[in-house]
Amino acid sequence: MTGSLLVTGIGELVTGDAEQPVLTQAAFVVDDGAVAWVGAAAEAPAADAAYDMGGRAVIPGFVDSHSHLVFAGDRSAEFAARMAGESYAAGGIRTTVRATRSASDEELTAHVRRLVDEMQRQGTTTLEIKSGYGLSVADEARSLAIARQFTDETTFLGAHVVPEGITPEEYVALVTGPMLEAARPHARWIDVFCEKGAFDADQARAILTAGAAVGLRGRLHANQLNYGSGVQLACELGLVAVDHCTYLSDADVDALAQSGTVATLLPGVEFSTRHPYIDARRLIDAGVRVALASDCNPGSCFTSSLPFCIAIAVRDMGMTPTEAVLAATAGGAAALDRTDVGRLTVGARADFAVLDAPSHVHLAYRPGVPLVAETWRGGVRA
Amino acid sequence: MTGSLLVTGIGELVTGDAEQPVLTQAAFVVDDGAVAWVGAAAEAPAADAAYDMGGRAVIPGFVDSHSHLVFAGDRSAEFAARMAGESYAAGGIRTTVRATRSASDEELTAHVRRLVDEMQRQGTTTLEIKSGYGLSVADEARSLAIARQFTDETTFLGAHVVPEGITPEEYVALVTGPMLEAARPHARWIDVFCEKGAFDADQARAILTAGAAVGLRGRLHANQLNYGSGVQLACELGLVAVDHCTYLSDADVDALAQSGTVATLLPGVEFSTRHPYIDARRLIDAGVRVALASDCNPGSCFTSSLPFCIAIAVRDMGMTPTEAVLAATAGGAAALDRTDVGRLTVGARADFAVLDAPSHVHLAYRPGVPLVAETWRGGVRA
Ligand SMILES: [Zn+2]
Ligand SMILES: [Zn+2]
Repeated sequence: MTGSLLVTGIGELVTGDAEQPVLTQAAFVVDDGAVAWVGAAAEAPAADAAYDMGGRAVIPGFVDSHSHLVFAGDRSAEFAARMAGESYAAGGIRTTVRATRSASDEELTAHVRRLVDEMQRQGTTTLEIKSGYGLSVADEARSLAIARQFTDETTFLGAHVVPEGITPEEYVALVTGPMLEAARPHARWIDVFCEKGAFDADQARAILTAGAAVGLRGRLHANQLNYGSGVQLACELGLVAVDHCTYLSDADVDALAQSGTVATLLPGVEFSTRHPYIDARRLIDAGVRVALASDCNPGSCFTSSLPFCIAIAVRDMGMTPTEAVLAATAGGAAALDRTDVGRLTVGARADFAVLDAPSHVHLAYRPGVPLVAETWRGGVRA
Repeated sequence: MTGSLLVTGIGELVTGDAEQPVLTQAAFVVDDGAVAWVGAAAEAPAADAAYDMGGRAVIPGFVDSHSHLVFAGDRSAEFAARMAGESYAAGGIRTTVRATRSASDEELTAHVRRLVDEMQRQGTTTLEIKSGYGLSVADEARSLAIARQFTDETTFLGAHVVPEGITPEEYVALVTGPMLEAARPHARWIDVFCEKGAFDADQARAILTAGAAVGLRGRLHANQLNYGSGVQLACELGLVAVDHCTYLSDADVDALAQSGTVATLLPGVEFSTRHPYIDARRLIDAGVRVALASDCNPGSCFTSSLPFCIAIAVRDMGMTPTEAVLAATAGGAAALDRTDVGRLTVGARADFAVLDAPSHVHLAYRPGVPLVAETWRGGVRA
């Protein structure tokens, strides 16, 4: 677009600014894809064009810092069996690995596009995508190359689970050697599923260290199913974020607060696996920075909806509506070490969602209702 | 539309037929707004036109048998305070009554239209709407007249709460006298909020009896906040449905099973008030017919989303995905004593939703995701 745009008639503006995150009777100006001015509507400067929101709320676009979109196959029957309390003779992640390896590049790409579009319709404007259903040198590299077509925030998760036909030691050597080499050109981050049955803390440390040596920054899946040492490892290594954090000791909470590592909470997982919800209030009150993300994946959580995660966070995790919206925007940005997105302050990218509602509170007040009416990226309506 | 339409390429067809509610490799034919044929796709008859669903699932349109859409005002701040555990000096229903009385006919009508459209986008094709925020002769009558513009399933709920400035005895006399007289031309049903603090069982019986005398069929809000005698009253009177049923004794469950009165469950209310979820499994296993509805209203539950209710019913109420979808379709129809909607069997209205998913299971598997891609009413895409 050419020229500046004044956005007016905003029912309520969530800027995500640290001091005053929610404004009323506010307006903002977009210029060259970024926010050029924010302030009282009555003091708005002139602009080349104007757009009236008709009293609707405007919030920063969601920053979903945790997703697994590159996969094939359908596991809805496994979900239904789990909900019925029945055992299901399926291979979990390995089922998806088989289907993903069998899918063509075109099929995988089309599937990712469908989910990215679905997320965008729900207000997500920045998205992290992990590999982790390839688990071979070629399939991890191609998963990341496909993800890279949709986002710069790509994460190499070769260390998702040890595939069949290889020992854990051999697999860690593969992940830290040839697989890392093949993944590196397509990835910004490296991640490990640090959990009993997946990779232990020593293996996670080795994998993250190898990644760091070739310029990939670390993140971690930790403490999802059990108490464990993953969260403390993340804090010790000074990682930007550690994700899940379902089972946290007081020492874990202290470590998070001291290190500044963002705790990324994924309530859709607790919803879809019937695990207990996380007490986010405990984390926030201890001074931990929290993010909310979808964890969109075919096994443990197939939601792509950050509005849904916000509603759960408010009902079941002790967050206020404002805290929840900030965790899904500025919090997600912090979890990706980004300050250019997740807020609507001067200099930030003009990525925002327009709600069919006068206030961001409605995201929790009206659970399940598709309230995102418009999604804008870089000052352009998507 | 003119001529018959063959619907093909259906990933999965939920017919709601009692014996075989879910079909694969099926097709159906629409003629003159109704379902004219259902069967194996390979045996489909010729039709004047065809429509290919591209592998998507087709389910009956949702029948939302309980909503309160005729209101004005915003109570999101009250919701936020409740979620924060703070007391909130607001008048509850009476706040909405004040705002509703102050609103013009045009404002109220536009507000109802907005919510009805929102419901339709989420797959609802048949909808009940109650009055209950007027609480004066004129305001109840106009609420029902407005509701009647959108549905034939209108319910007179003058007995929602006793308004200010009148004794309970005087108000019951008003409801059963002049208010009933004014409401009658616009209503099919009469309803009472039978709960401590609202109307007791004797008052409810008097109001339902007065309604029956002028041709209005009874329904009841009962056992929402406490154990009580409302559910057994509904069963004794042979009402078609009794709604909420959050607190049920074993005798209540027996009475429901014996009477055949539909228990309409409203999980959005439990969600938005943090009440415990209902054990729907207990009801179903006891032989009780259950429906799921939204209860869309500004106070206790402002969701309009039956997909959301289905996801909660599966996660937290012990229903299978199929049971939940049937409860929101054929179950809702039973709660309105309708057999022409809520199913896709020969003779039923061709009201259906097309999902962006291969199976109805995805409504629970993908919580919060707006999966309804198309809504059709009477064989025409809305
Ligand atoms: Zn994950
Ligand atoms: Zn109600």
